[in-house]
Amino acid sequence: MPDQPRVEFRTAPERYRHWRLTTEGPVATLMMDVDEQGGLVPGYELKLNSYDLGVDIELYDAVQRLRFEHPEVRTVVLTSGKPKIFCAGANIRMLAAAPHGWKVNFCKFTNETRNGIEDATAHSGQTYLAALNGTASGGGYELALACEHLMLIDDRSSAVSLPELPLLGVLPGTGGLTRVSDKRHVRRDLADYFSTKAEGVGGKKAVQWRLVDEAVPRPRWDETVAERAAELAARSSRPDDAGGVALTPLAKTRDDGAITYDHIEARLDRDASRVDISVKGPQNDPPASIGEARSAQFWPLAVTRELDDLILDLRTNETELGTWVFRTEGDPALVLAHDELLLNSKDDWFANEVLHYLKRTLRRLDVTSRSLIAVIEPGSCFAGSLLELALAADRSFQLAGVFEDTDPDADPATITLGDLNVGPLTMSNGLTRLQTRFWGDESGYEAAAKRTKEALEAEDAADLGLITFAPDDIDWGEEIRIATEERASFSPDALTGLEANYRFAGPETMETKIFGRLSAWQNWIFNRPNASGPDGALRRFGTGQRAVFDRKRV
Amino acid sequence: MPDQPRVEFRTAPERYRHWRLTTEGPVATLMMDVDEQGGLVPGYELKLNSYDLGVDIELYDAVQRLRFEHPEVRTVVLTSGKPKIFCAGANIRMLAAAPHGWKVNFCKFTNETRNGIEDATAHSGQTYLAALNGTASGGGYELALACEHLMLIDDRSSAVSLPELPLLGVLPGTGGLTRVSDKRHVRRDLADYFSTKAEGVGGKKAVQWRLVDEAVPRPRWDETVAERAAELAARSSRPDDAGGVALTPLAKTRDDGAITYDHIEARLDRDASRVDISVKGPQNDPPASIGEARSAQFWPLAVTRELDDLILDLRTNETELGTWVFRTEGDPALVLAHDELLLNSKDDWFANEVLHYLKRTLRRLDVTSRSLIAVIEPGSCFAGSLLELALAADRSFQLAGVFEDTDPDADPATITLGDLNVGPLTMSNGLTRLQTRFWGDESGYEAAAKRTKEALEAEDAADLGLITFAPDDIDWGEEIRIATEERASFSPDALTGLEANYRFAGPETMETKIFGRLSAWQNWIFNRPNASGPDGALRRFGTGQRAVFDRKRV
Repeated sequence: MPDQPRVEFRTAPERYRHWRLTTEGPVATLMMDVDEQGGLVPGYELKLNSYDLGVDIELYDAVQRLRFEHPEVRTVVLTSGKPKIFCAGANIRMLAAAPHGWKVNFCKFTNETRNGIEDATAHSGQTYLAALNGTASGGGYELALACEHLMLIDDRSSAVSLPELPLLGVLPGTGGLTRVSDKRHVRRDLADYFSTKAEGVGGKKAVQWRLVDEAVPRPRWDETVAERAAELAARSSRPDDAGGVALTPLAKTRDDGAITYDHIEARLDRDASRVDISVKGPQNDPPASIGEARSAQFWPLAVTRELDDLILDLRTNETELGTWVFRTEGDPALVLAHDELLLNSKDDWFANEVLHYLKRTLRRLDVTSRSLIAVIEPGSCFAGSLLELALAADRSFQLAGVFEDTDPDADPATITLGDLNVGPLTMSNGLTRLQTRFWGDESGYEAAAKRTKEALEAEDAADLGLITFAPDDIDWGEEIRIATEERASFSPDALTGLEANYRFAGPETMETKIFGRLSAWQNWIFNRPNASGPDGALRRFGTGQRAVFDRKRV
Repeated sequence: MPDQPRVEFRTAPERYRHWRLTTEGPVATLMMDVDEQGGLVPGYELKLNSYDLGVDIELYDAVQRLRFEHPEVRTVVLTSGKPKIFCAGANIRMLAAAPHGWKVNFCKFTNETRNGIEDATAHSGQTYLAALNGTASGGGYELALACEHLMLIDDRSSAVSLPELPLLGVLPGTGGLTRVSDKRHVRRDLADYFSTKAEGVGGKKAVQWRLVDEAVPRPRWDETVAERAAELAARSSRPDDAGGVALTPLAKTRDDGAITYDHIEARLDRDASRVDISVKGPQNDPPASIGEARSAQFWPLAVTRELDDLILDLRTNETELGTWVFRTEGDPALVLAHDELLLNSKDDWFANEVLHYLKRTLRRLDVTSRSLIAVIEPGSCFAGSLLELALAADRSFQLAGVFEDTDPDADPATITLGDLNVGPLTMSNGLTRLQTRFWGDESGYEAAAKRTKEALEAEDAADLGLITFAPDDIDWGEEIRIATEERASFSPDALTGLEANYRFAGPETMETKIFGRLSAWQNWIFNRPNASGPDGALRRFGTGQRAVFDRKRV
């Protein structure tokens, strides 16, 4: 993968090359049928429903659209359009040729989409059913593991497997190990055996070992899948008479120096290795009711979609821009008014979707390996949902007072906690960013939470521990300059490790285990000669030559 | 570090080169005074109380002896014998020259010793007080973080710091980040700032930010340290009139093919990349009371010390032997009788120490990057404490029936759960190995736990999920041969990652976060050119040349 193309994440069903999305009342079918010649970059064929980032981008799009455009869909049947194979996992030739950073980023996005599938099941009444009508191996089985119910065709040849370790010398690193142990509750010694057996396990043994929920003979396959789909649909409280909200194309312009949307502008400063991101608050009052808000133009949805696309674009295409500086611009009251409409309507399916989408997008920010800095100035609107950007940042600066020279009459910069900051926008660790910030400091949390709805100037915000530094006009420029320049001078790898640890104080969940423990081990293995060296297992796969291992354990 | 020496972990205070251990009633002082010329291998000087594995081996010995040989000691004051410096952390030149595996292993042992310090504080009434009479930087501060109470001299120059990221391009990877966030509860943005500021933080700000508990001016230093030591001692219930148990030298012979102790023999099979470890159960009934048991010859203590030394020896010196096969030999009833004496006496300080030492040693096994296989044959004694070896294994094999050809009249192999398996021998995740095995399978756990004290033959043990496979005589040799040969054929790195994930199902604790999330990230960073390449920060430190970084984020 010598010259990495610029990757675009925006797509739509009519442009899919690898998936077919159909719906029939409450049941959608998402059929994987990968176009072998449709790889994102040249150099490999996507045989046996193997996937690359391009396939995953379409899957992500489908998962998103199902939630917003199909309120009537209660079960999503994930299945394959190819005979005898559900999915062979990530394409090995693609992985073998990809540079380290590409592999890591690809796995991260894949993980996020699978977490999104679980999020739909858990919070949206849209339950995923894996209908494995053929072998699911490696990343194919990992995709199935993200589903609530796993059915495997019982035909004496189809199996589920995790052949990464025996065949490739790497881990099933996109959630596989963690979901096998912590979600499926497969006993550790059976899990160990299963993960070293390249051909996998099928039939009744796969059920006994909890690897799948049921094994169904071919003659009863279609009817049983339909039956399960109907059963899962019956558990859902999604409305059957609501109209969907079309996720219309995002207006985006991009050149070498900037990425611009309706509400967000990102300026790419290649000399300073940073991106300056400015988020505009809403210009108007929110609609009078959530019913009137149902459109892709509704500010919270529009700005979340833009932020989501921007994070993915920068993460994939601009790996040398190591620091993202967030600013906001607008009226805090209008942000809070939009938040309030969402919170007051959270039994409404659309409000629920917007809130969870914002939650997932902020989680994407949390696991992004870039230094995040929030800069809070007069005219900004770090309130409620937008305050999460400052709480997600590694450091924040709030101007004490105003810029005396340029705008002495401005109102001083404030931040405002809203109800959204103490409620639904949880991080992967299950806590809000505010709880995580004050983990182990109950009284600090209480003192801050008590000030909800109050516009806090820099000194108050600093005293309450809600921001990091509160320089005045005189020190402002210099302090921010030093912070960003210094960040650019540090080892990017060490910063990635530091941030991945400090952002997740407190408890761990399956999701944080996947991004922390599992991904960190996989990154290490990807970087080792035993996998990625010229004689490593990943590079030698399919060449007929065995890998040569340095046998030392570390 | 071209030719790695064989490392020996046995030592004793009279041979220490780097520490001085003194006791005065309930207060011990453990003074770090590193001999600059005393490095374990040539090529570096241990300036400024910096340490290498040799320094850490002495610290581990001291921590162990304090618990067994000094029941009267209730507070351990950790301080420095050098002016103005407490400890500068791991020696950089040593780290820069060390191969990857050495760094990883060194960090693991360092972590285990620090966990042992916390274990003494939590479970032994022997509380560690960090008396930082000079700057504690990097690993020096990380060592202090393992103490219960941190005092820093307030002299305008002494500070605590984590300069790894800005100076070396690596993490404070021996617990530092995790303890700063999850134990000290330093707010994440302050923690981030602190960890990028090479010169660190001292005085009142260090207290405000929770980095230390108090900053004490020099004139009041000695008296305040004594005062705190006495306060901490007053909280302890350790006996003041008990005699200590001398940890007499371990009888050990070692050659290229075997390591032999009184109760354990390890045969090193270099062709097969494996070690066959045989553990002998007790030969006699236990003493009538715990009072009579107090000696290093008491079987549970003796065998634990041997196992501890063996794990460390193999882990450090035999990195190419990737699979450890455990067997036991003896009378299960005698193992259970010794276990029972310990459990019935667990309010006794000595019984408490033996139990916690066994717990720590088994935890050392859990985090060992070797495949662990238990082989359960007639004549074995996998019961109670020794059954933990099988529960710690990645796979276990129990013979169904007997060896018809060689010993047809033997009693079939059994395993026996004892009270020790459902109680005090918790893993790092806070659960017993039995609970972890059945994580998410309550009824499986109940069914197994109900059979405590029953000798279970292979079929029963397999049905209950306590072992992995139960081959009979005919398949036995072949199955075990395949399992071990196959293990030797896999990528050692991928196995390390697999085992590190599957061994720790369920909840995470500070300890598992250190060994999982933090260490995995550090291993990755250690392996990256930005740290360890010829132009990396670790290699260039002290040369006057700046590191050259690949600026891409991954």
